[in-house]
Amino acid sequence: MPWFPTLSDIESAAERIAPWAHRTPVMTSSAIDAIVGCSLFFKCENFQKVGAFKFRGASNAVLCLKPEEAACGVATHSSGNHAQALALAAKLRGIPAHIVMPSNAPTIKKAAVVGYGAHIVECEPTLEARETTLDEVVRRTGAAFVHPYNDQRVIAGQATAAREMIADIPALDILMTPVGGGGLLSGSAMAAHYLSPDTAVIAAEPEGADDAQRSFRAGYIIPSENPRTIADGLLTSLGDRTFAIIREHVRDIVTVPDEAIIRAMRLVWERMKIIIEPSAAVPLAAILERRVESDGKRVGIILSGGNLDLDRLPWR
Amino acid sequence: MPWFPTLSDIESAAERIAPWAHRTPVMTSSAIDAIVGCSLFFKCENFQKVGAFKFRGASNAVLCLKPEEAACGVATHSSGNHAQALALAAKLRGIPAHIVMPSNAPTIKKAAVVGYGAHIVECEPTLEARETTLDEVVRRTGAAFVHPYNDQRVIAGQATAAREMIADIPALDILMTPVGGGGLLSGSAMAAHYLSPDTAVIAAEPEGADDAQRSFRAGYIIPSENPRTIADGLLTSLGDRTFAIIREHVRDIVTVPDEAIIRAMRLVWERMKIIIEPSAAVPLAAILERRVESDGKRVGIILSGGNLDLDRLPWR
Repeated sequence: MPWFPTLSDIESAAERIAPWAHRTPVMTSSAIDAIVGCSLFFKCENFQKVGAFKFRGASNAVLCLKPEEAACGVATHSSGNHAQALALAAKLRGIPAHIVMPSNAPTIKKAAVVGYGAHIVECEPTLEARETTLDEVVRRTGAAFVHPYNDQRVIAGQATAAREMIADIPALDILMTPVGGGGLLSGSAMAAHYLSPDTAVIAAEPEGADDAQRSFRAGYIIPSENPRTIADGLLTSLGDRTFAIIREHVRDIVTVPDEAIIRAMRLVWERMKIIIEPSAAVPLAAILERRVESDGKRVGIILSGGNLDLDRLPWR
Repeated sequence: MPWFPTLSDIESAAERIAPWAHRTPVMTSSAIDAIVGCSLFFKCENFQKVGAFKFRGASNAVLCLKPEEAACGVATHSSGNHAQALALAAKLRGIPAHIVMPSNAPTIKKAAVVGYGAHIVECEPTLEARETTLDEVVRRTGAAFVHPYNDQRVIAGQATAAREMIADIPALDILMTPVGGGGLLSGSAMAAHYLSPDTAVIAAEPEGADDAQRSFRAGYIIPSENPRTIADGLLTSLGDRTFAIIREHVRDIVTVPDEAIIRAMRLVWERMKIIIEPSAAVPLAAILERRVESDGKRVGIILSGGNLDLDRLPWR
């Protein structure tokens, strides 16, 4: 019997993280609306702590720990936004964080994690080494493992973004998120299920990493193999917990090519004057490419994050 | 006897432009506060219509015209944000706009103005040609000239940004703006004078275009000659109307090198995830360079705009 977060799980997460997380604004752009022919509402998780929605799930997980569990700290494997999110959440609670990162992770990402006071454990850049190293860290330190997405506390935390958006913007016809491991998507789907049941939740995914779409259609998890996309936050495979929710509560998963992602990202930079990372641009790319029937509709989009290397912009 | 806008001029402008202009948000960044050791409040005029505060003054000027004046349209010379601002304001009122631009103005800027339905009149890229051409256009069309900054309606319009900020953020110790022609600075100084008299208004200027600082110290207008700075919105000289206000109501004008401007701009992009143009980064550069005594203070900064060429970022 798969686990689904209850409304109370989501409300409790919202209450728990409220002192730490930003209640991010929803922005609109009449210029972009005119281009796409619908009303778009952008939930700005690029303005969230650490620059991504990931802080919601990580801080909920850290705050759920009992004092005796928390004392040993938390651990995870990630070189992306979850690593920074867990590092900051641990710092705020005053407990250690151990982050397993591949030895070839960019210096800038390591520096960000160290900047939040976390302890980096390097490993070979393979899935196996990552898991072995993490097991070892957990055994040695007694730290609580916080998976980047396949974790009940994390899913309930990610759900709080959609919860806020639904409270701010009533009567959304469609709610869109990108999908990688499915934490944001599954949380958003549950929030909409309870709080705005007439809203269709639709995910967007890069064509070069379309394992979620294929899994959704097949009815079982097809792992992501050799994904190739500029949206580096969306390379992972679904987990059993996120997939169970997605199967049940997501209307559709659509895909877009990288060129459309880059175009959508630039459009947001130019017209809205906000910085979003490629992964965050995937839903708007799907609207621009008309992969979603959105004419005249009210469409909420969760802009998942704004972390990227400003020295390596994709239009250069 | 120099003209100073009254509080009622500013309040009327605010009421007049309210249906057209955005009431922009004020953002904060705990990360940047920790770096600079004071509390910064950023008024996001990069989110204003056309991406710059200039829309406030231009739309106030357009809305001040009597119907018979408005019928002949408006005219100005500008290749910057004022051109787009006046073009949009005219479009919204349904009247013609004639924009005199040097023949070597970037295609992207011409396209933006044409996109708002304005009529471009090209001239040789000299001050003389610009003024002659403008006179000619005004004589031919009967259009009302709206100067980019040395205009009472424009100054009163620009004052509305500081007015909103003061309403949102009480007890500012310092209010900072960049200074080019002085429209934003003089408007802000008057708004603070009436609405928050204990707030010191301080302007920041690029070292390579320090005519406002030199004028301020000399007590008379020293024109800007061969300015060299990345802050391309700040190349112009003060006008007699803006200077009269600045002499009386501005506490100080400080300067910063271009490297500091670029650093400040990048800091805002990275930490706040918003896009600002170099001119908008000048006040923060002055704080970072410790050209202003700001320790522990509450400092408001008007982020003047977010328009720049994303293909030519200054850190490349």
